[in-house]
Amino acid sequence: MRIGIVTSGLGIARQCLRKNTSVYRTCRRQVTGSGSPLDLNVDSKTGIAVLSMNKPPVNSLNLEFLTELNISLEKVENDKQCKGLIITSSIPKIFSAGLDITEMYQPDIDRLEEFWRTLQDMWIKLYGMNCVTIAAINGHSPAGGCLMSMSCDYRIMAPNYTIGLNETQLGIVAPFWFADVMLNTVGFRQTEMALQLGTLFKTEEALNIGLIDKVVPQEEVLSAAQQEMQRWFKIPGFARQLSKTELRRPTIEKLLKKKEEDIGYFRDYITKDAIQKSLGMYLESLKNRRK
Amino acid sequence: MRIGIVTSGLGIARQCLRKNTSVYRTCRRQVTGSGSPLDLNVDSKTGIAVLSMNKPPVNSLNLEFLTELNISLEKVENDKQCKGLIITSSIPKIFSAGLDITEMYQPDIDRLEEFWRTLQDMWIKLYGMNCVTIAAINGHSPAGGCLMSMSCDYRIMAPNYTIGLNETQLGIVAPFWFADVMLNTVGFRQTEMALQLGTLFKTEEALNIGLIDKVVPQEEVLSAAQQEMQRWFKIPGFARQLSKTELRRPTIEKLLKKKEEDIGYFRDYITKDAIQKSLGMYLESLKNRRK
Amino acid sequence: MRIGIVTSGLGIARQCLRKNTSVYRTCRRQVTGSGSPLDLNVDSKTGIAVLSMNKPPVNSLNLEFLTELNISLEKVENDKQCKGLIITSSIPKIFSAGLDITEMYQPDIDRLEEFWRTLQDMWIKLYGMNCVTIAAINGHSPAGGCLMSMSCDYRIMAPNYTIGLNETQLGIVAPFWFADVMLNTVGFRQTEMALQLGTLFKTEEALNIGLIDKVVPQEEVLSAAQQEMQRWFKIPGFARQLSKTELRRPTIEKLLKKKEEDIGYFRDYITKDAIQKSLGMYLESLKNRRK
Repeated sequence: MRIGIVTSGLGIARQCLRKNTSVYRTCRRQVTGSGSPLDLNVDSKTGIAVLSMNKPPVNSLNLEFLTELNISLEKVENDKQCKGLIITSSIPKIFSAGLDITEMYQPDIDRLEEFWRTLQDMWIKLYGMNCVTIAAINGHSPAGGCLMSMSCDYRIMAPNYTIGLNETQLGIVAPFWFADVMLNTVGFRQTEMALQLGTLFKTEEALNIGLIDKVVPQEEVLSAAQQEMQRWFKIPGFARQLSKTELRRPTIEKLLKKKEEDIGYFRDYITKDAIQKSLGMYLESLKNRRK
Repeated sequence: MRIGIVTSGLGIARQCLRKNTSVYRTCRRQVTGSGSPLDLNVDSKTGIAVLSMNKPPVNSLNLEFLTELNISLEKVENDKQCKGLIITSSIPKIFSAGLDITEMYQPDIDRLEEFWRTLQDMWIKLYGMNCVTIAAINGHSPAGGCLMSMSCDYRIMAPNYTIGLNETQLGIVAPFWFADVMLNTVGFRQTEMALQLGTLFKTEEALNIGLIDKVVPQEEVLSAAQQEMQRWFKIPGFARQLSKTELRRPTIEKLLKKKEEDIGYFRDYITKDAIQKSLGMYLESLKNRRK
Repeated sequence: MRIGIVTSGLGIARQCLRKNTSVYRTCRRQVTGSGSPLDLNVDSKTGIAVLSMNKPPVNSLNLEFLTELNISLEKVENDKQCKGLIITSSIPKIFSAGLDITEMYQPDIDRLEEFWRTLQDMWIKLYGMNCVTIAAINGHSPAGGCLMSMSCDYRIMAPNYTIGLNETQLGIVAPFWFADVMLNTVGFRQTEMALQLGTLFKTEEALNIGLIDKVVPQEEVLSAAQQEMQRWFKIPGFARQLSKTELRRPTIEKLLKKKEEDIGYFRDYITKDAIQKSLGMYLESLKNRRK
């Protein structure tokens, strides 16, 4: 399974960053304007928004894509017609490959920090969404893809894929809030073992430990998500939201209190020589696999 | 499944409350004195107390009934012959329907606060009981009935009933300490999903997720509870109690620190126009169902 | 199943203690030097250390043995060739019977406190080990034996033995950090019930609730542990360690903050007349069983 490399575009963004923040922001907006890697469709009849990730080759999460995700999540949350959000992928066989490794390899420090902050913001938004969120996992979902899935209210997955926080396999470490979401999903023992081993669970294994909630054939993932949504819509929205907030708030507040500390920790860890060397070798191996 | 409406008696109690507390207390005592809705039997040979709820139609928890429950729990805890307590129901097909909705609809504020405080006290007592507590769940056990069940040390249930914290289905929200007890019973993921959806689990489902511990036929629930008690009696009582206290204390202390805050939160939430309207419609629908 | 009584040697150690600490330390070193009850073998090819407990009759944890354990754990952690540690037993049918009751019965207070501190240190070391730790449980593993097992990263057990924190059965209480490790292993509900009842789980039951991870025939326990180790060795060590530390640190820090308080609590509890009487009767019953 591949972790995506998307070098195009990053160079330009880096140039923007080097000048100043406001220019960078303009730059980001332009990128956003020129054909989004996200398809967002809101059905005003059903009240269901479908957000489909469409960023070849593997929906890897780089700064621009995370920024787009944040904009989409905000749109959905602010749209009073939206009662539910389904997150899925338009790329065959991959939900999302997770964080874009090229963001971490030989990084511009300002961008690296902005990248991490944008990831934090995406998660805070997604984990705390008032509307019902369902992950329609129609492909592999490692690392950041697994984080996004776990942050939804319900997970439906197609067979023969893998999902998990496999960071240690690449020599990096899932941040504490990735771990916290996994703790909330499968409990301490499974999390402790999965994080140490960087386990990628096959669909059936993921179902067995409760990492996902339902398995349906590939072609039914989206319709099953639509159908599942109806079960959640039956509940008065304000009461359901309050119940969700009450339970998830402590986990979100833990990161809110440590955002800057977490950014600093990530920056210092990822820029270590040993980690950079390890990431370089990994990227090289991906290039060779592609030839 | 019905949530009970018991309008008789409440009017009188409210009049008492309006005058002053001492009058109210007298009033409560009189109610208590005149035929209790609780049968408490202590078998001095076995050391087992059986507390059977007998408040037609559905053992709904109103202020007077909660007060009676508190008195009974104290009696049991202070009775040195009592080593174990079985809580069950004398009403066919219902363990307890939970909180009496009429306490929350168009409430007298003083009584509303007293109602909630008495509920808090009941739970603090029950969850922290030194003696062994077993719920013999011989009927439906939604909402507050589920709370009582979960607060015991062991749960035995008859088939073909339901149990769960279904508050959101009525547009209200289980307070944080209901959620905490459920977290302690079935873990975060099941709690998060069950609370949002207001899930009422069938007996077998409840067993599968660990919400109850054992299923036996209706007519054997009580004897199975008596038998189960023997397993707990084999353990030196002081060591068993200390183990229980050590584990449950943090959950109890969390509420103790926030009692008044929790009362205020409940009062402000329940008296909102939208919630009152919703409760009114619910009560109306119950009346119509009964016709 | 027996809890071991080892009276030989304790008297001498007590004499040392009564003089002063430095003398006691000399004494301990001499004991250590004269034939260790622990076999530690490091295979520099595989990077696996095997620590086999060999203290007849039942590998009970007294002050001297815990001290030896601490020395061995430190040796392993400081040996750069060691990537993994397997803990097992050389005594047939017993992994470890847990704490030596004779340490607690009619104790010298200084030694009692030193005993408990050494136990705390052993656990802090073992639960926080940087290298991979696997318990090869080839015999009964009650109380302290269960603690040691649960503190490893992975547990492989032979059939037809028992494991659990059975302290309450002896009228004593597992300290909070024993409970914390069990919470981290099998969750709140199972812990709460197991601690109250002092449950000793049979191998298969232990597997079902997640208290152990794998069951293999008696003669394959050690080789299965060696094989399992390979799965963990595939992960970059520093990333795996950081993941482990991040998750286990809060549990370890909780004890670090309360070490002295915990020692005092243990001392005061264990020296109570009722507890001493109960331990005395238990030791007497063991003697009679041996005859």
